[in-house]
Amino acid sequence: MKALVLKELRILELCERNCPEPGEGESLVRVACCSVCRTDAKMWQSGHRDLFLPRVLGHEISGYLDSERVAVWPGRSCGSCAFCLSGRENLCASMRILGFHHDGGFAEYVAVPRTNLLSVPGTLPMELAALAEPLGCALHGLDRAGVRSGERVLIYGAGSLGLFLALGAAERGAHPVVIEPDGGKLRKSSTFRDRFGVGSAENPSAVSGLFDAAFNAASVPSTLDGLRKLRSGGRYCLFSGLQELPESAAPLLAGLHYRELQLVGSYGCTRASMASALVMLERFCDDLAFMVERKLRLEQLEAIMPDVMGGKHYKMVVQF
Amino acid sequence: MKALVLKELRILELCERNCPEPGEGESLVRVACCSVCRTDAKMWQSGHRDLFLPRVLGHEISGYLDSERVAVWPGRSCGSCAFCLSGRENLCASMRILGFHHDGGFAEYVAVPRTNLLSVPGTLPMELAALAEPLGCALHGLDRAGVRSGERVLIYGAGSLGLFLALGAAERGAHPVVIEPDGGKLRKSSTFRDRFGVGSAENPSAVSGLFDAAFNAASVPSTLDGLRKLRSGGRYCLFSGLQELPESAAPLLAGLHYRELQLVGSYGCTRASMASALVMLERFCDDLAFMVERKLRLEQLEAIMPDVMGGKHYKMVVQF
Repeated sequence: MKALVLKELRILELCERNCPEPGEGESLVRVACCSVCRTDAKMWQSGHRDLFLPRVLGHEISGYLDSERVAVWPGRSCGSCAFCLSGRENLCASMRILGFHHDGGFAEYVAVPRTNLLSVPGTLPMELAALAEPLGCALHGLDRAGVRSGERVLIYGAGSLGLFLALGAAERGAHPVVIEPDGGKLRKSSTFRDRFGVGSAENPSAVSGLFDAAFNAASVPSTLDGLRKLRSGGRYCLFSGLQELPESAAPLLAGLHYRELQLVGSYGCTRASMASALVMLERFCDDLAFMVERKLRLEQLEAIMPDVMGGKHYKMVVQF
Repeated sequence: MKALVLKELRILELCERNCPEPGEGESLVRVACCSVCRTDAKMWQSGHRDLFLPRVLGHEISGYLDSERVAVWPGRSCGSCAFCLSGRENLCASMRILGFHHDGGFAEYVAVPRTNLLSVPGTLPMELAALAEPLGCALHGLDRAGVRSGERVLIYGAGSLGLFLALGAAERGAHPVVIEPDGGKLRKSSTFRDRFGVGSAENPSAVSGLFDAAFNAASVPSTLDGLRKLRSGGRYCLFSGLQELPESAAPLLAGLHYRELQLVGSYGCTRASMASALVMLERFCDDLAFMVERKLRLEQLEAIMPDVMGGKHYKMVVQF
């Protein structure tokens, strides 16, 4: 089969290799689409805590098990610990991730546990089914922050994750507002935002009033200032990891005490949130079609990595 | 009446002044006991965000309304906002606190809203009834962090608040461990800790295993390292405000994202948590008697302020 292998940082090589051998309880999935996550580009550029080389990247996968259409939950969890048994399998201590610890979806075939396969509903196009993982992460984040109907929700970033958070918030009856300095992204998403009643601003100072919940869908330290934009008792979801803190971190955390705020981490997604994502993708597939900004062949992936790092575009999807 | 007035920082003056005039909906409470909070000593030494001088300090009050024995919830909230109507009156935007914004309990009489009065049950001694406020703060913190039966709970500090958190955690069926570098406090609390199954250590490195929840009952930046002692998905209650962050703050917050931890603020208490505290104080009044380390007269209060700042003792209670 054809596979694109990250041999070392910044070196992706198109290889011909044997199909992976499914282990016990696993199946071989023929990849239909694998969309590119900004984390893939970061791993390509500078590695990742959970990445071991050489590796086939790619964890946003739709494909075929014989003739069945499936989306792939990219984790491998033990299945028997308290986290796995309580539907928090993303926290399993022995968690391993496709495209991080194991070979992922930038290849014609991928071996995955059968319990990781979710049916793709109805006529949902496979390139959108590949977005079940990132949308699942957004829905999981909304659960973590407990977003409810009627709440005002502030989202830093209107990339694909920011818009997925906004969609999920709107679907719960909340009122999302995205902050996005890139006017291009605001233009490209304007129909979507109008359709779902998503407010927008190019910078935080243009946003007025207080919010019940906030999310950072951008790894920028200053997004933590969103704690100041919460009403007392509000929740801030650390949806993106921050490698550095803003200078204002100490007074922000003091305010967290006095105003009883919550800072809540969210990482990855569960099977349940991916299953919800697939339902939502089918329901809104016309509204979400613009999110697949470009379809490409495996051979073209390396050339667009700098573009993905730049973060100017919505989803690039490798199609087989 | 006699009142001890903080005229300026570090200057407490025993005055003879008129009794306060109760406003509409208020009653005049004859103070029986007012215990000394470390915050009183901090305000005496260096002021506080919510302190306006001159002021009668004291917010841990038991007293008499005619012959009825009462404990006083020290807030003044609007009573009509969403927070007040949902039992989160401690977050009311117009919240004013006795002994901070209004004159408090280091005086023979105090004027308070009648809705702030809670009955002191049974034969609970009035010096212990004065501890309903700090115990209420601890119970509120346990609610904020959602401590449940069977959980391991780590508490930084075995001062009165640390022990109250431990008591509340044990009462919920959780397993508390206190970290307290002051061997004197560990000795004084040993009977109490044995009675309630509270583990202890003199420093964090002596504590093994992971915890479901952690609390800082000490305003020391390094207590935030407790985030590392949480299992994935665990909750850290910022029970004390931190004016500075530890050097490790950036990786700690990165871990919060990856391990889906929660950092939860807790400030003050509600009427409901004070009512629960009164029930618990009566039930365990013999076990808690040691917490009133000294009873004193109003005239003696100024002299012990440096001692309270030093934090070596359990409760000092002014008795009228």
